[in-house]
Amino acid sequence: MEEKVKQLASRLAEIADITNAQALLNWDQLTNMPNGGAEARGRQLATLAKISHDLSVAPELGQLIEDLLPYADTLPDTSQEAAMIRVAKKDYDRETRIPGEFVGKITEHISNTYMKWVEARAQNNFELVRPALETTLELSREASSFFPEAAHVADPLIDISDNGMTVGIIRPLFSDLRKELVPIMQAITSQAPAEDACIKQYFPEDDQIAFGEKVIRAMGYDFERGRQDRSAHPFTTRFSINDVRITTRVKSDDFLEAFFSTTHEAGHAMYEQGIDQALEGSNLASGTSAGVHESQSRLWENVVSRGKPFWECYYPQLQEIFPSQFGNVSMDTFYRAINKVQRSLIRTDADEVTYNLHVMIRFDLEIDMLEEKLEVRHLPEAWNERYRSDLGVLPASDAEGCMQDVHWYGGLIGGAFQGYTLGNILSGLFYGKALEAHPDIPEQIRQGKFDVLHGWLKDNIYAHGRKFEAPELIQRVTGSSMTTAPYLAYLKAKFGELYQI
Amino acid sequence: MEEKVKQLASRLAEIADITNAQALLNWDQLTNMPNGGAEARGRQLATLAKISHDLSVAPELGQLIEDLLPYADTLPDTSQEAAMIRVAKKDYDRETRIPGEFVGKITEHISNTYMKWVEARAQNNFELVRPALETTLELSREASSFFPEAAHVADPLIDISDNGMTVGIIRPLFSDLRKELVPIMQAITSQAPAEDACIKQYFPEDDQIAFGEKVIRAMGYDFERGRQDRSAHPFTTRFSINDVRITTRVKSDDFLEAFFSTTHEAGHAMYEQGIDQALEGSNLASGTSAGVHESQSRLWENVVSRGKPFWECYYPQLQEIFPSQFGNVSMDTFYRAINKVQRSLIRTDADEVTYNLHVMIRFDLEIDMLEEKLEVRHLPEAWNERYRSDLGVLPASDAEGCMQDVHWYGGLIGGAFQGYTLGNILSGLFYGKALEAHPDIPEQIRQGKFDVLHGWLKDNIYAHGRKFEAPELIQRVTGSSMTTAPYLAYLKAKFGELYQI
Repeated sequence: MEEKVKQLASRLAEIADITNAQALLNWDQLTNMPNGGAEARGRQLATLAKISHDLSVAPELGQLIEDLLPYADTLPDTSQEAAMIRVAKKDYDRETRIPGEFVGKITEHISNTYMKWVEARAQNNFELVRPALETTLELSREASSFFPEAAHVADPLIDISDNGMTVGIIRPLFSDLRKELVPIMQAITSQAPAEDACIKQYFPEDDQIAFGEKVIRAMGYDFERGRQDRSAHPFTTRFSINDVRITTRVKSDDFLEAFFSTTHEAGHAMYEQGIDQALEGSNLASGTSAGVHESQSRLWENVVSRGKPFWECYYPQLQEIFPSQFGNVSMDTFYRAINKVQRSLIRTDADEVTYNLHVMIRFDLEIDMLEEKLEVRHLPEAWNERYRSDLGVLPASDAEGCMQDVHWYGGLIGGAFQGYTLGNILSGLFYGKALEAHPDIPEQIRQGKFDVLHGWLKDNIYAHGRKFEAPELIQRVTGSSMTTAPYLAYLKAKFGELYQI
Repeated sequence: MEEKVKQLASRLAEIADITNAQALLNWDQLTNMPNGGAEARGRQLATLAKISHDLSVAPELGQLIEDLLPYADTLPDTSQEAAMIRVAKKDYDRETRIPGEFVGKITEHISNTYMKWVEARAQNNFELVRPALETTLELSREASSFFPEAAHVADPLIDISDNGMTVGIIRPLFSDLRKELVPIMQAITSQAPAEDACIKQYFPEDDQIAFGEKVIRAMGYDFERGRQDRSAHPFTTRFSINDVRITTRVKSDDFLEAFFSTTHEAGHAMYEQGIDQALEGSNLASGTSAGVHESQSRLWENVVSRGKPFWECYYPQLQEIFPSQFGNVSMDTFYRAINKVQRSLIRTDADEVTYNLHVMIRFDLEIDMLEEKLEVRHLPEAWNERYRSDLGVLPASDAEGCMQDVHWYGGLIGGAFQGYTLGNILSGLFYGKALEAHPDIPEQIRQGKFDVLHGWLKDNIYAHGRKFEAPELIQRVTGSSMTTAPYLAYLKAKFGELYQI
């Protein structure tokens, strides 16, 4: 078995090497590549994708995994070898059960749909992209059909990014959450809106970048094993657990943009950087799911860097860097400005309270479409109706309505959105557990010290990589299954104080 | 045949895609990669190298080429298809005749030798690296032995970078050149050395970079299909003919460093950018040899940007950018400073006149070692003796003697140096031909216009990529075989005027 485990590790390492090379080609395309390079880069990425796909579905790999599964069952629960074999089995099944020809068909269709969407959104004409979206829905259902054992048509699609999660788990969580969030939002938005002119002044871009980098270095993002560049949309990527890079975008007239995207991406990146070095090069050396990943970006962005203890430490420093902008702005005004709650139309601009309402609308509509309860041609009305009922606003156009996000037009329908809200729920759950273990974390943060929080997250979550699927990881960390209570308690405490509700 | 040509093109494109991905991983390593990324990057590069090697020696590829060779012979001389097939044949033979196992042995040996060299050079102790270098010599002879049809033991090694070139062609050229260069150097260095304090002042780095970029943009380097970054050693790399990047290094106390490395690398890059778009993605879409490549870097660096017409246009602009440094320095003083000739020990710092003497010493010593006329243990004395006789200087140590360059310690012995001087000779040859066609080129340059020269080089050299091997290309461009006369005429005219000799 020893020899077979080695062979498996070597095959998986080869696949990981190519995947990481693809990631570098993508990163370069979004940060450095001159325009002229696009066509050849597309070819190079396609060639690498073909090679990694061929390696991922090689029958020899499948045989090796089958041979090793009984051996994995003899190993202890927390064995790295056993996890490597089981994760390999799951990945191999997914790769092989979806026929290569079908993947090719989907890829081409999505690429065409994306181009249609760009046009349709610019012209605010949903009809232009509707037929393509109808095909996407059919293909999404077909993709699901390769996993006939699934309890719900969306489960296999959700499993791609949030493995172990199902409609059965998510629906009651989301339903709980919405029930609580709507009244909170209503109570807040019945008051006068927070004044946020102070964060809409002119801030030199380099100073913004320098401040953000100083903060994330203090939080624990390791620049010896990463770097920050600029790109049109912020993202995190990794070429190994020792080279995890983030990007940001800066607006000289909006302080929110660069700073909170920097702490957000640093959260993702610290997760990857924190994976146990023993897992490097294996199939376990990455975050375990979209939701757990998002829990870390949200935890560092919202719970920490939109929190009062954080700014009690950093606001005086920020005032020193931007004296003419913030010199006469009180900490309280600034804190209210960065935590302004409002009913809005655009998910990516939403605040902590309303953000999940945006996400859950999308999740419900996805499920309705997959269940054939909602036809694509009725999506615009359904979207608008939900915005009216949940958020109390009405999109003036489909461009800021159901054509707002790229997800359904640049991928499948199903599995695209739940991770954001799962992440928020988990950020509260995990932070609560960290506080139980170390009640002085807020005081530490007030002193600009993040190592206790970072260390706890690393030991309990980051280190494990993909060793445990999200539900098992949650069970191990919290001793129970997923619940919204700690997240809601966090929101109520923070916004209760801010808005006296 | 149609179908087989397509199959061949597709296999070659796949190999090219992987090679270009490797190039990006290398570029990133030298420009952006955080230290932590090194280990994984090594693995990723090794995996890609293995995959591209497997594809390059696939028996199916060999069969396809064999099937197509008779067809290639029926095509016209200048046919792209015929060139693709013939170049594929040559590459395939080289890849398959050197056994994979031997390549592995060499790679490991060279990696160890390189580390030994770093240590030996730092300690100025040749004995430390001598045994490794002896093995390198044996391995170099063994590598040559896989090509028993070669007329000279060094020919197969030279052919790797300068395909079509042989000791038989190079030796008489170099012998001619040395005979002429030594008296020129003696005549110049018997005079008082040029005053070059003006270029050793403080120059803000960003201003240097901005000036260099302005110049190469005017020359014709296309930033829409390239970019410039900083790295420890300047280099050019390409991921397609539409994404050709250069790097430079800047010293704030030496104007020579960044500017001339920028025009040098831009010369390499314009060659690659100038390849016919019809060749993109094929095995013909790169420069044809090290020598022809170097002819372009040298032409733009030396013939153009160290020339008088160039500075008659740009010196006033340079004075505006650096008024305190150059405001009171005459054009003549500046021009003499950047063309200072001196007997020196270090190849990379050498001027136009003495540079080739450095290179030819190395070439002769390589050949002597390969012919077993010179033992590695006697290399230090042989090196010093040649420096004494050719350049009239004596290294104070082996560190600045035979351990000066990385080439023999980071690669094979043989084929590493000739390209530099072939490039210089060709820069004179090609520039002379361009002048015959367009005698007003110097006047154009004086007006800051480079399009006639650039256009001529593109049409006659760049566009062809690897379609013709160097000797055939030279024959086509000049109507005769390679000769040193135009290069020597250029040097004599330029330095004759500068030093009244």
